[in-house]
Amino acid sequence: MSDTSVIDRAAEILEKQTSRRRFLRDGSVAALAAGLATACKSDTKSASAAQAPQGQTGGTMGAHDTMAGNSAAAIAASADAMDAMHEKGVKAFPAKTTGKGNQLFAPRIDKDVKVFELTAKKIKWETEPGKFVDAWAYNDQVPGPQIRVKEGDRVRVILHNQLPESTALHFHGLELPNDQDGVPFITQPPVKPGQSYTYEFTVPNSGSHMYHSHHNAAKQVGLGLLGAFIVEPKQKSQYDGPDVDEVMILNDGAHGYTLNGKGFPATQPLVAKLGQTVRIRFMNEGMMIHPMHLHGMHMTVVTRDGWPVPAPWKCDTLNIAPGERWDVIVRCNNPGTWAFHCHILPHAESEHGMFGMVTALVVQK
Amino acid sequence: MSDTSVIDRAAEILEKQTSRRRFLRDGSVAALAAGLATACKSDTKSASAAQAPQGQTGGTMGAHDTMAGNSAAAIAASADAMDAMHEKGVKAFPAKTTGKGNQLFAPRIDKDVKVFELTAKKIKWETEPGKFVDAWAYNDQVPGPQIRVKEGDRVRVILHNQLPESTALHFHGLELPNDQDGVPFITQPPVKPGQSYTYEFTVPNSGSHMYHSHHNAAKQVGLGLLGAFIVEPKQKSQYDGPDVDEVMILNDGAHGYTLNGKGFPATQPLVAKLGQTVRIRFMNEGMMIHPMHLHGMHMTVVTRDGWPVPAPWKCDTLNIAPGERWDVIVRCNNPGTWAFHCHILPHAESEHGMFGMVTALVVQK
Amino acid sequence: MSDTSVIDRAAEILEKQTSRRRFLRDGSVAALAAGLATACKSDTKSASAAQAPQGQTGGTMGAHDTMAGNSAAAIAASADAMDAMHEKGVKAFPAKTTGKGNQLFAPRIDKDVKVFELTAKKIKWETEPGKFVDAWAYNDQVPGPQIRVKEGDRVRVILHNQLPESTALHFHGLELPNDQDGVPFITQPPVKPGQSYTYEFTVPNSGSHMYHSHHNAAKQVGLGLLGAFIVEPKQKSQYDGPDVDEVMILNDGAHGYTLNGKGFPATQPLVAKLGQTVRIRFMNEGMMIHPMHLHGMHMTVVTRDGWPVPAPWKCDTLNIAPGERWDVIVRCNNPGTWAFHCHILPHAESEHGMFGMVTALVVQK
Repeated sequence: MSDTSVIDRAAEILEKQTSRRRFLRDGSVAALAAGLATACKSDTKSASAAQAPQGQTGGTMGAHDTMAGNSAAAIAASADAMDAMHEKGVKAFPAKTTGKGNQLFAPRIDKDVKVFELTAKKIKWETEPGKFVDAWAYNDQVPGPQIRVKEGDRVRVILHNQLPESTALHFHGLELPNDQDGVPFITQPPVKPGQSYTYEFTVPNSGSHMYHSHHNAAKQVGLGLLGAFIVEPKQKSQYDGPDVDEVMILNDGAHGYTLNGKGFPATQPLVAKLGQTVRIRFMNEGMMIHPMHLHGMHMTVVTRDGWPVPAPWKCDTLNIAPGERWDVIVRCNNPGTWAFHCHILPHAESEHGMFGMVTALVVQK
Repeated sequence: MSDTSVIDRAAEILEKQTSRRRFLRDGSVAALAAGLATACKSDTKSASAAQAPQGQTGGTMGAHDTMAGNSAAAIAASADAMDAMHEKGVKAFPAKTTGKGNQLFAPRIDKDVKVFELTAKKIKWETEPGKFVDAWAYNDQVPGPQIRVKEGDRVRVILHNQLPESTALHFHGLELPNDQDGVPFITQPPVKPGQSYTYEFTVPNSGSHMYHSHHNAAKQVGLGLLGAFIVEPKQKSQYDGPDVDEVMILNDGAHGYTLNGKGFPATQPLVAKLGQTVRIRFMNEGMMIHPMHLHGMHMTVVTRDGWPVPAPWKCDTLNIAPGERWDVIVRCNNPGTWAFHCHILPHAESEHGMFGMVTALVVQK
Repeated sequence: MSDTSVIDRAAEILEKQTSRRRFLRDGSVAALAAGLATACKSDTKSASAAQAPQGQTGGTMGAHDTMAGNSAAAIAASADAMDAMHEKGVKAFPAKTTGKGNQLFAPRIDKDVKVFELTAKKIKWETEPGKFVDAWAYNDQVPGPQIRVKEGDRVRVILHNQLPESTALHFHGLELPNDQDGVPFITQPPVKPGQSYTYEFTVPNSGSHMYHSHHNAAKQVGLGLLGAFIVEPKQKSQYDGPDVDEVMILNDGAHGYTLNGKGFPATQPLVAKLGQTVRIRFMNEGMMIHPMHLHGMHMTVVTRDGWPVPAPWKCDTLNIAPGERWDVIVRCNNPGTWAFHCHILPHAESEHGMFGMVTALVVQK
């Protein structure tokens, strides 16, 4: 190919890309506009003057506009159809699906050792009602079962590999002896299909950590080989022992946008009573940032990657990058059902309603 | 399709994608190289030795190299052509466009209530000279008009929906009673086309907040249904009452990369006098992070999502994720016109010059 | 094109995109599954019961499973083939390549001025063994040579432009007089091909900074026109004078995912002795965030963009956005070779093994 044709071809490709983006962008607006062909005339109508509810806490719907004719009817029908899809999703929440990830893992006790056996294998996983995806899972769960131990505990983790690939376990955030770090060819051989491998160590540091595959990890973690590894500290701080203690693992791989392995409306709400404190342990096992936004109340950030922050700080939107863990405390002083979602809006809502990284914090009176 | 053909096809697609990326990447270099066909010979030339200006504050241009022949001329012509485009953009700044977003919204006073009426409708919006996009806007502005009230104020916001879709208003960052939270089917019904809806509340917490649609929001916010909601605190801190107080809303949706609804060179500069303090309230209403970089002076971060940080900290590049708000103080002790831009460079500059998320802080002597 | 066809076409494109994504996603799993056609039967096998090593620090490989027949053999062969690729990469680390970036730049002394001459030109750069890319480089290095001076030093930087485009130098993070800021048409004319340009200033602030092109920068910086500009402070803090002081420049442009201009296995390890402290100066010159994760030990964050943080804080995964610089201290109290990589896993590992943004911290006994 001559240089000139390379240039021409590059220009052509770039032009196509640009046009396509423009087309898609305009297309969505155009599609809407087309369905509402004569609706534009209604742009000149004035909306009904809202009657402000004097001395009342808002929320009053104004009177319907006196729109007449086909265009208003077409708009109304189109809006109703869209709203029905949105309502259906909300009403279904929390939707039942088969399988629940991140279940508390009761260890087998062998003398003074807490023993956890993890079997990695291929399963079908239901991320939202009727949507089954191929998953690689520990103990049939995505995320894998929640390991929860104490600083100083002796722990043994036995990995059984029933996958068609080699694998290995990395304990992300734990400051282990090098030979327990789980990186094939650096700290151990890969664990071949059909093999088992045993890790054993004294838990050196507290906090919200993770375990996940560290072999062909872009694929293996993306398919579900991950879980929470929570270490309670010897010395409790004022933030330990909240009324509610939740893990929220964010993911965005082959299974779509998920919280603890499920997409809205199959995500599980966080529930607390008015006045209680909730501790949320955010963990990102995906490939993208996810700024999680809580409505109605703020979050106080107390630890980062398991380490107490020098001075807790407040926010309502917390950006969580892949590999990071952040613990926050929410003082539930505002009753109601509060949306709680990633604020990259295309991770949370489409024209068909909310999906993916959406859940709710329910504060009960 | 047989398993084998699936594999072949997947390999083919992956190969195409890779080749295409490679092609595009190499293409841009090739295009350049081709235009300069014989120019490569000049690689062997040595640049003119620069005469360092003794005892002088730099900035002296060295002598032109003694390049001769077509290749040098071709390079010079190509460089001049590119530079002319870059210069044109800078010289046009701040370029005039129709429409200005984020204008301070003077409320109507109804007894002791500050009343703001927002009409959502479709408009054409000029993001840079001659570039008109389809927008969904509040009161014909993108971002919508700036609401600025005080902590403890009684506020009524009346939303008139003249859009062809239902919508709703969420007050992002305000800790309101649940029924004022603006999430259809969770805290209220959707506001149908032609309808109005009234929110009313006592402003509970201070800081830099936002209002935006929370219905079909990936689309509606992307098209412009957003604005700043600033709450001045009852108790002023040392950072309140700066000489200049600016809002900078970042967006990256259907309208391209914008600051307060405009792309460079139609963005507006921030202007201060030497010695003054500027408070910048960053807000991200887009889908991507934007690390904003200020030249010449650092920023001191004082609040996060409206909450004072435990200890202010300094930076020159502040990463702002979707949904986050950050307030910074700049002490304008360095005179001049300072570039101020997103440091994801493809959000700020192309071969045609600077565009998108670029503005300037002008410190006048 | 009629409105109707626009709608149809948009729907078609969206459908194709979705199908393609689905196809690619399923494809990778399908490809694997197909190669292992009869392997699925082995899902019913039970893995060998691991014999937990009593009183021993883990790491024992369990017995091979008693898989029999073609399927187990096929799985084993496939796993072995993949593992061999992974092993090859690790064993090659640190792989030799031609060219080394970020070399300490010894200035020429002209009276009391430290003079650095930078020549920008096109080169071929080897990012990993055998992979040569087109680069635009300062002094034949990517990143350019490391400038290291002291707060208050008088510095002269002479830029020689041997590129086929105009260029200019911006000192990112230094609070210079406006005419030394390096932004064409705002603070200086562009430096044309064949020209030289001299910057001269007294270094105003300490910390980890950068120099890079600020003209057509998305392309020029992407191709390699960047380097570290380290300023040692007049007043040393407890974090200055570590045993090992390293710069790690992250990039993700035309050269792929790189650390100091090289991709794994050609990246260079950080090496320290047990008990030593390492200071790492992270700098992001790319277009994406990179959350860098260190195994085995935590990092203490001490400065941000060259400014001391109010209170150092700890983490094991540090998210670094474009334009940001973060200095961290690692106390090397855990011997071994520790993986150190971007935790956006597709930036660090593929089915062919680790690549890109991967290196190691080696703590020697």
